[in-house]
Amino acid sequence: MALIVQKYGGTSVGSIERIRNVAERVAKFKMLGHQVVVVVSAMSGETNRLIALAKEINKDPDPRELDVLISTGEQVTIALLAMALKDLGLKAKSFTGWQIPLRTDNAFTKARIEEIDDRAMRAALDNGQVVVVAGFQGVDADNNITTLGRGGSDTTGVALAAALTADECQIYTDVDGVYTTDPRVVPEARKLDTITFEEMLELASLGSKVLQIRSVEFAGKYKVKLRVLSSFEDEGEGTLITFEEDSMEQAIISGIAFNRDEAKLTILGVPDKPGVAGHILAPIADANIDVDMIVQNVGVDGTTDFSFTVNRGEMKKAMEVLNMVKTAIGAREVVGDDRIAKVSIVGVGMRTHAGVASKMFKALAAENINIQMISTSEIKISVVVEDKYMELAVRTLHQVFGLENGPDAKAAVA
Amino acid sequence: MALIVQKYGGTSVGSIERIRNVAERVAKFKMLGHQVVVVVSAMSGETNRLIALAKEINKDPDPRELDVLISTGEQVTIALLAMALKDLGLKAKSFTGWQIPLRTDNAFTKARIEEIDDRAMRAALDNGQVVVVAGFQGVDADNNITTLGRGGSDTTGVALAAALTADECQIYTDVDGVYTTDPRVVPEARKLDTITFEEMLELASLGSKVLQIRSVEFAGKYKVKLRVLSSFEDEGEGTLITFEEDSMEQAIISGIAFNRDEAKLTILGVPDKPGVAGHILAPIADANIDVDMIVQNVGVDGTTDFSFTVNRGEMKKAMEVLNMVKTAIGAREVVGDDRIAKVSIVGVGMRTHAGVASKMFKALAAENINIQMISTSEIKISVVVEDKYMELAVRTLHQVFGLENGPDAKAAVA
Repeated sequence: MALIVQKYGGTSVGSIERIRNVAERVAKFKMLGHQVVVVVSAMSGETNRLIALAKEINKDPDPRELDVLISTGEQVTIALLAMALKDLGLKAKSFTGWQIPLRTDNAFTKARIEEIDDRAMRAALDNGQVVVVAGFQGVDADNNITTLGRGGSDTTGVALAAALTADECQIYTDVDGVYTTDPRVVPEARKLDTITFEEMLELASLGSKVLQIRSVEFAGKYKVKLRVLSSFEDEGEGTLITFEEDSMEQAIISGIAFNRDEAKLTILGVPDKPGVAGHILAPIADANIDVDMIVQNVGVDGTTDFSFTVNRGEMKKAMEVLNMVKTAIGAREVVGDDRIAKVSIVGVGMRTHAGVASKMFKALAAENINIQMISTSEIKISVVVEDKYMELAVRTLHQVFGLENGPDAKAAVA
Repeated sequence: MALIVQKYGGTSVGSIERIRNVAERVAKFKMLGHQVVVVVSAMSGETNRLIALAKEINKDPDPRELDVLISTGEQVTIALLAMALKDLGLKAKSFTGWQIPLRTDNAFTKARIEEIDDRAMRAALDNGQVVVVAGFQGVDADNNITTLGRGGSDTTGVALAAALTADECQIYTDVDGVYTTDPRVVPEARKLDTITFEEMLELASLGSKVLQIRSVEFAGKYKVKLRVLSSFEDEGEGTLITFEEDSMEQAIISGIAFNRDEAKLTILGVPDKPGVAGHILAPIADANIDVDMIVQNVGVDGTTDFSFTVNRGEMKKAMEVLNMVKTAIGAREVVGDDRIAKVSIVGVGMRTHAGVASKMFKALAAENINIQMISTSEIKISVVVEDKYMELAVRTLHQVFGLENGPDAKAAVA
């Protein structure tokens, strides 16, 4: 008998029929003798409907009351799922965040989990009940309702699995696992049976929207065995996110992430002296603009060029800030470019294999794709290219690193 | 400075615009220096929408989970109203049932209030905040969410007023007060400035749907000053429900109630011996059929006829039960009639004035309206007539008792 935490997102519970399907899947695990805790999101569309109501009153609604409002979305789902489970003859009990209680800080709309009391859930499990928990919500020390921010239901699932020392946390979603890259771009993309936490972190933060990054961090911190599965298929083992780095079974590169949500800004002819990077980025941070990649080259003739990327929607604002900075520091020119894309290869294997970067750059060059920026970490290499080349770059790298072949083909690839 | 509890029903908060109107009315009271507690229902249609979702899963949904589900309706409204109040520059704080906490027993979907902790609300009021409370909901001793049953928001309002010893509990609705009878039937119907609790109880239980009967009982028990007002008009004092019976200002008859929701059943030729009424009604009660009026005449020739009324929808079931009873007790025949209506005159004045009944019966006879059944209490006389005469009976009685003229015309009426 195992204790399994399952998390279902909004699409998986988007209608009464789908809620019934979830109940039937839970019943299967229950019939195998497992204890099951189910974490659910609001039915798809519900959170947006509620936020729209709030925005009719005020474009910037009060955060405490916004949490009171949107937490009802998950509360509706837990009640309906518990009913559906009972309709199948199972015992079930729903829990809101405060009923657990799942304690958070008081940062409304983006609260962080502080403590989970497992006693009420444990009592229900011992009583043979399926425990149905509202994701995304908690309660602060003053009994105010809080929410964990969008996508927080993944985090709830992982946190409950940690608190209950569950055997596995299963995240059900509309894909059947983590792929080497997006199958819509590369038809040969292959589902990974396993991926390491570090790789998953890089992939999540790079725009593969399978899992919320905070939930992955949480799983890593508390050593929760995490599995991504499809809620629309009955078969399949999904992708297991592991802590082990068994290099005998691990390919050098596990996946390729990409996005075109960013814009590149460059400030040219910056006087090359200490502290200049801070002078440029401080006003950007003050304007609440998040910066992703940052590249500064060695200076030539006492000046240097400084580039960074921001979210595409914030390019205009960033340009305005930079133009003021330009005057202040005596730089020559500011240029912005929103026709860029970021492509990243990720894999713990590259730690021990030289030549991954040069292989990547050569492959792109062979397709005449110019690299505008490069940024690396221990298990990741990201490049910025002109956005029209993004798909070609992804397909090329997928092929060059043999991702369609799986771990067995590693020797040939290396 | 007074402490005022205001309750707004589903129609009064049925859209964002109407929620804004409620906020503006609350602001007026606040500006006058009063402390205000606002109790709200779910937006009109929302409770039915949620129940329909539950019934898609199971026609008879689990009651605990049904309460988890439908309590979200009021939670949405408190959040939106608190936002609207803050949008007007007021301080406000929403409270769900468990956040107060408002303790109830564990009878899901029809829970009864056991205890209200006034400390959290009091702290918010002392802090200058408008307290916005979700009506209709509470929490039991095991932290399960409960609801008070349909219309329970009135009861929440009165109970909070009692717990906070408020100066007045104002029930805002879509009518501007309690009328002598339904203005749609008698255009001359007059709004009452005051009505006694006993009269209000009789009117509420007789089908005037202005106030939920449980809330009136509650107000009487805890001596809460209750006022019914329109949420769609800015002027008007509504109707105050008083404890005083000042006969100098009180008309003999305060109002006329009526309904055609009932059916009449008669069992003919019942052997006239002790215990026979019990033999007839016990199986009806066992079948969970509520009985309203009961009439048994003195027997003739050793047999008697026994009549009673039930909800119209239960006539068929009651007939089946009675036909079995007939055989068991040796009665002659069972007849049912669903083309009936009940008309009642209500007024504390009839206690001390003889001749009210005869005046009523004469007036109906003058219009050739045959009385099928009569039932009386200290402050009420109900008659059953053929349903096609209902409106005529109500109009006739309204005129005969001078209800359109108000208390001043009392002498002439008596």
